[in-house]
Amino acid sequence: MDPRVESFVMVHNIAKRHNVGTLARSATAFGVSELILVGRRDFNAFGSHGSTSHLRFRHFHSLHDARLYLKERDCDICGVEITDGAVAVNQHPFRKSTAFLLGNEGTGLSTKECEICDFFVYIPQYGSGTASLNVTIAASIVLHHFGVWAGFPERTRDGNKFVVAEKPAKQVRRNYCADTAESVIEERKIRKENASHNFFDMNGSDDSSSMLDTLFGG
Amino acid sequence: MDPRVESFVMVHNIAKRHNVGTLARSATAFGVSELILVGRRDFNAFGSHGSTSHLRFRHFHSLHDARLYLKERDCDICGVEITDGAVAVNQHPFRKSTAFLLGNEGTGLSTKECEICDFFVYIPQYGSGTASLNVTIAASIVLHHFGVWAGFPERTRDGNKFVVAEKPAKQVRRNYCADTAESVIEERKIRKENASHNFFDMNGSDDSSSMLDTLFGG
Repeated sequence: MDPRVESFVMVHNIAKRHNVGTLARSATAFGVSELILVGRRDFNAFGSHGSTSHLRFRHFHSLHDARLYLKERDCDICGVEITDGAVAVNQHPFRKSTAFLLGNEGTGLSTKECEICDFFVYIPQYGSGTASLNVTIAASIVLHHFGVWAGFPERTRDGNKFVVAEKPAKQVRRNYCADTAESVIEERKIRKENASHNFFDMNGSDDSSSMLDTLFGG
Repeated sequence: MDPRVESFVMVHNIAKRHNVGTLARSATAFGVSELILVGRRDFNAFGSHGSTSHLRFRHFHSLHDARLYLKERDCDICGVEITDGAVAVNQHPFRKSTAFLLGNEGTGLSTKECEICDFFVYIPQYGSGTASLNVTIAASIVLHHFGVWAGFPERTRDGNKFVVAEKPAKQVRRNYCADTAESVIEERKIRKENASHNFFDMNGSDDSSSMLDTLFGG
């Protein structure tokens, strides 16, 4: 396995009921490189047990921009959704670094969200009592399988716990994914490079133009 | 695979932070036969999305009684805990019907809880940001793997959702696992049959004598 294989988690217009705290805890447990928020950037961090400070957050204003960023990193985008062509996640249909796009509970992934996905995975269900899983649980099962597939090295244990690293000194503002100076420059660069392509957001209805406006009060 | 293979989930002295609602939702998704509560029987059902009415609940006063019940069904008891001999769950170390005993978050399984387990599984972690997973997430990953191993038939889908059965007419009292007349008779029978064995609870410190007291106000 290529040692540079990475995983990402992506959530678009995060809903209040998305529990980013529990999601962040699973993401860091399963070696996720970044949690990418698209659109809304305020979140509910309950249940993180301090994990949010160990995880890199990144924000994009549009699915288009998030996709460009991931494609620059030669990353597949995998929707976690029960679609007709979706593959059972335990079959490990992975090829390289992958970003997992999670839907909103209830409605799942929208048409626009599905459009940026290269493929889909779903989690087989056997019982009759629920139409779907809690979204953080679904995400955790998928991230677990990706780690097994990628052969990520297992974290050192101490007794019956995995060893937690020292908290990084610099932390993100609580419950809010801010842009750093670097991320702003990087996103601006990507947008500039791809300005002429315009291959994704043809109808202009995606909210991809407000980056500088937001930053400079435009 | 033996078509009679079943899975069970067992929680001892359930803590407030155990979210039985989300656990029940995952349990029914993954074809669990019964959710067994030992000791405390009041629970927090938030997040069940109606799943608690599709799942059979059973209550025992002691680990001893729960173990007898499971052993009568030729069931392995598997602790979900990071112990020295624990096997990574993705290696599917299963042999037959299995009950999964979940620990309390933070402290994990106690010595007494570990004593009734035939073997242990754990979920490999790769990142440095958390000592352990949320207990419902850990349980869901384990139940998912058991279903894959057992080859449970996949539930019918309708579009991007799995089909939910009609709600059974008879429902358990909300947030409380009551004994049914049948379960009382069954437990009494098991206790009678095994009264002379006394192989498990030698020191008498397990709370195994209050069944009839509770029922008949003793």
